[in-house]
Amino acid sequence: MSKYDIIVLGSGPGGYVTAIRASQLGFKTAIIEKENLGGVCLNWGCIPTKALLKSAQVFEYLKHAEDYGLSVKEADKDFGKVVERSRGVADGMSKGVQFLMKKNKIDVIEGFGKLKAGKKVDVDGTEYTADHIIIATGARSRELPNLPQDGKKVIGYREAMTLKTQPKSMIVVGSGAIGVEFSNFYNSMGTDVTIVEFLPNLVPLEDEEISKQFERIFKKSGIKVMTNSSVESVDTSGKKVKATVKTRKGEEVLEADVVLSAVGIASNIENIGLEDVGIVTDKGKIMVNDWYQTNIPGYYAIGDVVPGPALAHVASAEGITCVEKIAGMHVEPIDYGNIPGCTYTSPEIASVGMTEAQAKEAGYDLKVGKFPFSASGKASAAGTKDGFVKVIFDAKYGEWLGCHMIGAGVTDMIAEAVVARKLETTGHEVLKAIHPHPTMSEAVMEAVADAYGEVIHL
Amino acid sequence: MSKYDIIVLGSGPGGYVTAIRASQLGFKTAIIEKENLGGVCLNWGCIPTKALLKSAQVFEYLKHAEDYGLSVKEADKDFGKVVERSRGVADGMSKGVQFLMKKNKIDVIEGFGKLKAGKKVDVDGTEYTADHIIIATGARSRELPNLPQDGKKVIGYREAMTLKTQPKSMIVVGSGAIGVEFSNFYNSMGTDVTIVEFLPNLVPLEDEEISKQFERIFKKSGIKVMTNSSVESVDTSGKKVKATVKTRKGEEVLEADVVLSAVGIASNIENIGLEDVGIVTDKGKIMVNDWYQTNIPGYYAIGDVVPGPALAHVASAEGITCVEKIAGMHVEPIDYGNIPGCTYTSPEIASVGMTEAQAKEAGYDLKVGKFPFSASGKASAAGTKDGFVKVIFDAKYGEWLGCHMIGAGVTDMIAEAVVARKLETTGHEVLKAIHPHPTMSEAVMEAVADAYGEVIHL
Repeated sequence: MSKYDIIVLGSGPGGYVTAIRASQLGFKTAIIEKENLGGVCLNWGCIPTKALLKSAQVFEYLKHAEDYGLSVKEADKDFGKVVERSRGVADGMSKGVQFLMKKNKIDVIEGFGKLKAGKKVDVDGTEYTADHIIIATGARSRELPNLPQDGKKVIGYREAMTLKTQPKSMIVVGSGAIGVEFSNFYNSMGTDVTIVEFLPNLVPLEDEEISKQFERIFKKSGIKVMTNSSVESVDTSGKKVKATVKTRKGEEVLEADVVLSAVGIASNIENIGLEDVGIVTDKGKIMVNDWYQTNIPGYYAIGDVVPGPALAHVASAEGITCVEKIAGMHVEPIDYGNIPGCTYTSPEIASVGMTEAQAKEAGYDLKVGKFPFSASGKASAAGTKDGFVKVIFDAKYGEWLGCHMIGAGVTDMIAEAVVARKLETTGHEVLKAIHPHPTMSEAVMEAVADAYGEVIHL
Repeated sequence: MSKYDIIVLGSGPGGYVTAIRASQLGFKTAIIEKENLGGVCLNWGCIPTKALLKSAQVFEYLKHAEDYGLSVKEADKDFGKVVERSRGVADGMSKGVQFLMKKNKIDVIEGFGKLKAGKKVDVDGTEYTADHIIIATGARSRELPNLPQDGKKVIGYREAMTLKTQPKSMIVVGSGAIGVEFSNFYNSMGTDVTIVEFLPNLVPLEDEEISKQFERIFKKSGIKVMTNSSVESVDTSGKKVKATVKTRKGEEVLEADVVLSAVGIASNIENIGLEDVGIVTDKGKIMVNDWYQTNIPGYYAIGDVVPGPALAHVASAEGITCVEKIAGMHVEPIDYGNIPGCTYTSPEIASVGMTEAQAKEAGYDLKVGKFPFSASGKASAAGTKDGFVKVIFDAKYGEWLGCHMIGAGVTDMIAEAVVARKLETTGHEVLKAIHPHPTMSEAVMEAVADAYGEVIHL
């Protein structure tokens, strides 16, 4: 029976990062993976979707070449090749994780790991033991009872990124990041896309102004948007799929080649032995403390299986925190109020902290500032004038409560707000940090200036 | 004789921003401009060049459409339209400044302003007076004695962005931001470009590793690079221009349609009445204190006419500081050690703080970290794997001494480092600020981790 200091169950961005950090800290480490190293994120999530969206972005440039003084004849996409490129990128990343495991001397155990009492894991009949077992089994596409996925006509994100032929029409159910990213991609490729959202706004977790602006741009791009609507049932008996959608005006039957269910995720906590060990779960999540310890000593859980935002960077950070604590380092608990969220559509969305509604609800007096990219020189030059930066400060103490961005490249700009908030900045300090001209990032400085009545370019 | 609280001489990004801030602070303000509102930056610099470079970037996508699973037939550029788009963007921005002047109730005085003693300015025969006169006349292309510009065969940046026909071949002298940006643009458009740099490295102000990487990518893109070389003389008598270039191996005669002189700038301090007023200059710059006061009370100077980096964002910040001080606000002097610099080539370059060589020279013990975009998931997905982030920390106290980036989109990423350095961050804090996945900005976090032996993805 092989004995390790640390065994990590699952090799997504939670698990493999945890394993690397554990190895760096001197722990003899193994990682168990049932499928591909890198988990959903690398193989079926973050990375391959970004590859698809890049092809979509370039295709948009091809279609609008004239806007830049250029010309093309017969701009076209090869859907198969677009998908193939995306798969190639995912494979490359997975191989990269393989390399990292080797380099860090982490044993990779292939198979389905099942926890057992006494700090053991059974992998298809072989038993492994460790002082610390970290559960990082992630999540999968959630299935709604009235929207059962058959993998053909009603699909999840996994099928959506590997369809053999491009559907002519698609209904996307749910407008979180996954839903809107696929809507964006397929719409760009030429598929007729309708997005159905139960709540009043698209990307409903975002600040309402962001959602509204996003919806305007999405509609302008040709995507049909149905908010306050829900798919009641689907009929897959015919050649096409029929979806009965309940709207505020009554029921409507939509027809499409494919329905993509993007209504969130479900944690992978079944059949991994939680019950045998006696690990407590609640509402489909494993309960942990600030250091990701479950109720059973020696068992930990991180990432999508624990409460909190189901995001790759959160899983990685949780894993690092978990093993650094095990190593006896001085560790601070993760500040869940300072987790950025990104959506890689065109335009991109990025945000961190409270929305304006949340901040009001929390009882703060607010100073809110906004700067539109239409007033940015760089955005004019680049032809990316859609969107804005919105900042929310506490009027009393100047705390930066929230930052919300929509526009080109904002997913790479939100880090500024994350770091500044981590460092407990005030608006004045951000304002006096000289942002380079001409950049999109000036909009952050200007939005802060707007909050304090000092905006220059408005 | 019109009397103002503040008169600003020159309406570039120094002058017009100063005027707006002055007006916000309640000063009756006028601005004097001899040509176009917005100055060189908006009309002949930052903005129109970014428009040209955007066309170049899109043209590269057209040429490499297959890399993304796309196809085009006959991708072509219309040089005239590319230039026209750039001029349109510049005109739009200049009109924007016009709007801002009106909105802020700033009087725009057209003409050439000449300072007079007694806080007066003469504009083509009309005299204006003010309590405070702020000189923001900017700079122009510097001329070398052995490279006299005739505006046709030997040109400056101004002509370079409005050529009627595209040159088949071009020699670019000087590899600062202006030189390399035009090299990039013309090379993309299909011009045969040779760049001649006197110093051993391209973009010689950057960290040497950045310069080396930049040179490799530049060469790979087809640009001929001659470093340690200088143009000794030009012969414009023939149809083409002949440039005699002194290299380490001897003299070489190059032939091209056009030579672009991009050897820096010269401040516009001539004929504006400095001598009449008695304002002290040194080495072609107006001498000022921390609050931009010249030696003569009531006269101030900001931007490219004073020592310090000749950058638009510096000029704006100086102007704001200057008028806030005049208004009696509590103002801190600008920290010239925390000014970002950006170059908008493909790949982009962005940096702030000391280079490794400068930090060593200053006697610091260093912790240096580097993270290549080739190891970034987002870069793989986007097909932007060239480049890296390099960070330099003081080993003793953890001060972030410098940050140097080369790669796609880094000009929008450097703000993070600027703000973090402004807030006197330590590496550990940046490391523990959760950067979103997958983004290019993760490379900053990983480079910091590398400096501290904690990098995950290497």
